[in-house]
Amino acid sequence: MSEVLADFLADQSAVLQEVSEDCAPVLEAVSALLRGGKRLRPAFCYWGWRGADPDLPDEGVVAAAAALELFQAAALIHDDVMDDSDTRRGQPAAHRRFEALHRQAGWDGSSTRFGLAGAVLAGDLCLAWSDELFSRAALPADALARGRRVFNVMRTQLMGGQYLDMLEQASSTQRGAAGAVERARRVVTFKSAKYSIEHPLLLGGSIAGAPAGLLADYSRFGLALGEAFQLRDDVLGVFGDPAETGKPAGDDLREGKRTVLVGLAVQAATPAQAGVLERLLGAPDLDADGVEALRTVLVDTGALDGVEAIIAQQVDVACATLEAADLSAPARAALHELVVAATSRRS
Amino acid sequence: MSEVLADFLADQSAVLQEVSEDCAPVLEAVSALLRGGKRLRPAFCYWGWRGADPDLPDEGVVAAAAALELFQAAALIHDDVMDDSDTRRGQPAAHRRFEALHRQAGWDGSSTRFGLAGAVLAGDLCLAWSDELFSRAALPADALARGRRVFNVMRTQLMGGQYLDMLEQASSTQRGAAGAVERARRVVTFKSAKYSIEHPLLLGGSIAGAPAGLLADYSRFGLALGEAFQLRDDVLGVFGDPAETGKPAGDDLREGKRTVLVGLAVQAATPAQAGVLERLLGAPDLDADGVEALRTVLVDTGALDGVEAIIAQQVDVACATLEAADLSAPARAALHELVVAATSRRS
Repeated sequence: MSEVLADFLADQSAVLQEVSEDCAPVLEAVSALLRGGKRLRPAFCYWGWRGADPDLPDEGVVAAAAALELFQAAALIHDDVMDDSDTRRGQPAAHRRFEALHRQAGWDGSSTRFGLAGAVLAGDLCLAWSDELFSRAALPADALARGRRVFNVMRTQLMGGQYLDMLEQASSTQRGAAGAVERARRVVTFKSAKYSIEHPLLLGGSIAGAPAGLLADYSRFGLALGEAFQLRDDVLGVFGDPAETGKPAGDDLREGKRTVLVGLAVQAATPAQAGVLERLLGAPDLDADGVEALRTVLVDTGALDGVEAIIAQQVDVACATLEAADLSAPARAALHELVVAATSRRS
Repeated sequence: MSEVLADFLADQSAVLQEVSEDCAPVLEAVSALLRGGKRLRPAFCYWGWRGADPDLPDEGVVAAAAALELFQAAALIHDDVMDDSDTRRGQPAAHRRFEALHRQAGWDGSSTRFGLAGAVLAGDLCLAWSDELFSRAALPADALARGRRVFNVMRTQLMGGQYLDMLEQASSTQRGAAGAVERARRVVTFKSAKYSIEHPLLLGGSIAGAPAGLLADYSRFGLALGEAFQLRDDVLGVFGDPAETGKPAGDDLREGKRTVLVGLAVQAATPAQAGVLERLLGAPDLDADGVEALRTVLVDTGALDGVEAIIAQQVDVACATLEAADLSAPARAALHELVVAATSRRS
């Protein structure tokens, strides 16, 4: 897949070159981002395809999988703009990269604004390119059309999920404790479970012409594993070892992220515990003592145990679905490994 | 075309509804924007198609033309974010709309940041939707594939042109007078002429299976008219009557836009005139006297006459190309009207 992406970016470099050599930094920002990443979505797309045991060369599905990776690059670049994040995949976020270019060159105007604009454009290019790569995939027309239906819903529902997430961050205080867990789980479903696992599996399976029964199993498996995966992420964001996760301890708490973990705590909190949550969650100057106080509330309210119970339950659903599904042996083994990797990790 | 867009948005509303009813404001922001606009690009796409006199129902090309309008909506929403503009098509810009939603609801966090994030997402949705609508167009596979090649290049080169524009705004002082006109014309070519006219014409023509000679004429016509159109816009931005243009007098000067008009002035300026340009162009607090002083420089350096001469020359090229081109009579008449409308306007 790296080769497909590299060839595609070389083509696009020629198209941009026609505009001007000065466009090189845009391509470089995208290329740098694409050199990193776990390529989780392409893996699920590929195994969703292999699971249906299609009688087709894999060239077409690899292009579709690579299109997912370009789409994810767009989502990350724009996410970092929206959250004003500094780093991504161990490098400066795209907007910081353009900001630095502007500052080092000593150009006119605001470096921050130049950085923002450059990153919005770089993300837009990745969106257009993702689509171009997808539409170029060497696949029979009916296979491509089936895949496109999944690809289309995936894009719209991810963006809907992201909007829901920012809405929840903004309005959770006002909406209150009732329903907090349900709302947080809904964000997880659309922003993570569907986008990262269910839709990639369905994309590969649809391209392969998988029967409805297998697609339904992919959905059940993907939603369960996807939720488990995100909840593990949330737990690591609060209780993980910074040396292993690569993220500073307590960042999620400092940002005030409205996770399922937090939702469970909010719903079970005593008035004293609720006071701690209200005072410290999302405090920009949260220090180590504050982090510890919040962790204590998350443990004492039973929220951590509650999240671990959901993770265990969803892993069970995912595993049982996988065992029972009518799919090829190599795909079953690979998907099983992905379950373990996604939910038992420490980083 | 309005019906195609309305039906398409209704479909997307259902897809977003599955995520949550709370996503309604995103759809509303897009719908409101799409209710306005001159629909210039769809018109050129349609007439490029009709010019080739294709023996096909026009349903497919109308969907492709509507996809251009959705793409333009994305470009406008993200442009307004990048420029931090307040209004668009007489309404609040998308980011201002989300900002107001946040403020009026009294939610947590920064309204500005919520506005920015909402608009980035709304623009991303329009990009994905533009592509979805395009790929759905009821066209024979070969016609759609020919159109897609134009659609793809158009998107990448518009974004390249936008990057070049922001680069020119930032670096023009440093790069100096030499080459200023050439650089400004290059931005016009890629950001306006190709995007607004040449590529829409080629899109329609390619879908219709127009012969290479006609496509070459469309390119020559489109690039000439596109430049004339943008230069007219630049002249109106400085010398237009606010009552007719709907834009405050001097806004382009206050923003310090590096137009061809400004480039010609910079290259022809005496030291005294250069001093005025340097002091006043892009000054955020530029007042009526300052606007008048800049206008005087733009006239006295011969820049205004120079721009009018380029406009006249390009209109001649466009008209001569149109007369000589082998295209259907209704298309020739319609394109001729579009030339007049685009270059003799006062708003």
